[in-house]
Amino acid sequence: MTAATPAPTTSNFLRACRGEPVTHTPVWLMRQAGRFQAEYRAIREKVGFLELCKTPELAAEVTVFAVRQLGVDAGIIFADILLVLEPMGLRVTFEKGDGPVIHDPIAGAGDVDRLTGEIEPASLGYVGEAIRAFKRELPTVPLIGFAGAPFTLASYAIEGGGSKQYIATKRLMYEDPGAFSALMERLSTAITRFLTMQIEAGADAVQLFDSWAGALSPSDYRRHVAPHMKRIVSTLPDGVPVITFGTGTGGFLEELAASGADVVGVDWRLDMADAARRLPGVTLQGNLDPVTLFGPVDAMRREVEAILSAARGHRGHVFNLGHGILPGTPVDHVRALVELVHELSAR
Amino acid sequence: MTAATPAPTTSNFLRACRGEPVTHTPVWLMRQAGRFQAEYRAIREKVGFLELCKTPELAAEVTVFAVRQLGVDAGIIFADILLVLEPMGLRVTFEKGDGPVIHDPIAGAGDVDRLTGEIEPASLGYVGEAIRAFKRELPTVPLIGFAGAPFTLASYAIEGGGSKQYIATKRLMYEDPGAFSALMERLSTAITRFLTMQIEAGADAVQLFDSWAGALSPSDYRRHVAPHMKRIVSTLPDGVPVITFGTGTGGFLEELAASGADVVGVDWRLDMADAARRLPGVTLQGNLDPVTLFGPVDAMRREVEAILSAARGHRGHVFNLGHGILPGTPVDHVRALVELVHELSAR
Repeated sequence: MTAATPAPTTSNFLRACRGEPVTHTPVWLMRQAGRFQAEYRAIREKVGFLELCKTPELAAEVTVFAVRQLGVDAGIIFADILLVLEPMGLRVTFEKGDGPVIHDPIAGAGDVDRLTGEIEPASLGYVGEAIRAFKRELPTVPLIGFAGAPFTLASYAIEGGGSKQYIATKRLMYEDPGAFSALMERLSTAITRFLTMQIEAGADAVQLFDSWAGALSPSDYRRHVAPHMKRIVSTLPDGVPVITFGTGTGGFLEELAASGADVVGVDWRLDMADAARRLPGVTLQGNLDPVTLFGPVDAMRREVEAILSAARGHRGHVFNLGHGILPGTPVDHVRALVELVHELSAR
Repeated sequence: MTAATPAPTTSNFLRACRGEPVTHTPVWLMRQAGRFQAEYRAIREKVGFLELCKTPELAAEVTVFAVRQLGVDAGIIFADILLVLEPMGLRVTFEKGDGPVIHDPIAGAGDVDRLTGEIEPASLGYVGEAIRAFKRELPTVPLIGFAGAPFTLASYAIEGGGSKQYIATKRLMYEDPGAFSALMERLSTAITRFLTMQIEAGADAVQLFDSWAGALSPSDYRRHVAPHMKRIVSTLPDGVPVITFGTGTGGFLEELAASGADVVGVDWRLDMADAARRLPGVTLQGNLDPVTLFGPVDAMRREVEAILSAARGHRGHVFNLGHGILPGTPVDHVRALVELVHELSAR
């Protein structure tokens, strides 16, 4: 690196995470490397999803490609939230079209003992390798590492896959809160080790995806989830921004901020202005409805303006969607979105 | 009816809807007649879902049975939100296990003209007959009529069935707001006629189910849905409480109240205390997580106490779940819930 190369720490993305002034609102998009891209689909015709995650050169390649194609202000390493379950002791497979399957799911206290939280980070070393490969290719672009949050991982481990109602998960939570908490603790330990390894490999920020936290009532989240989130955030290395995100969490957004995270992601079901009023102390990330990208650019522009304007003057804003990019989204609309954010927010 | 028979208008349910004092918090439960009951499943082994809806004696029977079995304070007539689409000009079938199918869905402006809002209420006369049969059997029990709200019906009419992302619905909304609004207007007219007929047949209150409104951003709800909701509520006969409800609407609950509804249903993703603070002028309905019914009664009791306590002193509270009763819910836990609400709220 020459002296002229801007280090990621001065990037708009990291400055926004820290609540510092920016020259434009930084933008990245959840699932910015994915099925909406012909180039990604071409790779996936040759390798399976898990194989892609576990082949560092390929994982780095799709991560780098998304940054170059879309012009976003940060990359997010290509991986999956369920990878950490393997070294913990669960077998995970991805069936075509059916989503993930977790074999021998957790049914009660006895099963929790089967799992270890004290994972060997080297068992997930391929993610670290991918991070290093990205950094070699794009040393000035901030890179986000990530992990699933403990509740979302617990729900997969208990339900054995995706779920609509989370009945088994909540039953364990209500019937045996001790066993549920023990499971959450082991998951939290493993997640912390995984994220720390990603940071050591070069991740400039980390995001905790609590994809299914929105299935919980605020009181259940406070009781059964919030303490574990706090523990993870406080145990991670200092100086690296932590982002928390879950859809449908508008009813207890304050709890996400109380975890100590620097940035809270907001889904599209909440006005950015409401989020800004409720969370003055954190940077906000979000929150365009991903389906807006299927409509005309004019309608999208109006929504982007409204979101930028609601976040103006706030502690910090990282533009994003309120959920991941959907398959079938027109690539040119995604690029138009990134340009719009840069253009409309230029200081 | 003898003079000693209390008319429904003095019932705790209707008093709570109007914000008047009650002797205990009234409770009814969404989908209180349904697959969690062995008696309902036995009837459904003999008749299909649509046939059950369209046979007034049977529809009244399952409605009455739920009130008697559970001890709830109100009945809700057994029917389906999609019934109104038939006289409007769409063909609806229910495939076993696959949910509803709407044949020849709406793809654009031209298709909207195929639909009529000016439906003949007699075409849905079987719902009125079922209401009258319920009233003969249980004249002192308040009965709720209902309809799907226009956005939810529009999404079915456009997607051709259930949906996860509502891409086709939102595309029409963004690309051709005129056609979308014309569709919403026709739906609103038909819904108003349908509900008015139910009120004339004896319904004491009506609920608008906006099951999928939670897929929308607050700004899209305000722009594309709220005006139609206002029009429906203002056109309905005076003196009959109107309840609006949708899951995932915590980000724009104020808009549901702004429709002019007397009662706003709250899902379990929001603290009842927050809802009460935000909507001082309306009665609140809700909001126990339906999965709580799968857990131990002790854990349920704690949540019921918290909800009752948060709503105490509010303009009015009708206890309910935050969504419908799920198949597999233990019937004895549902009865325990109703007893708990009555016991813990007795003045």
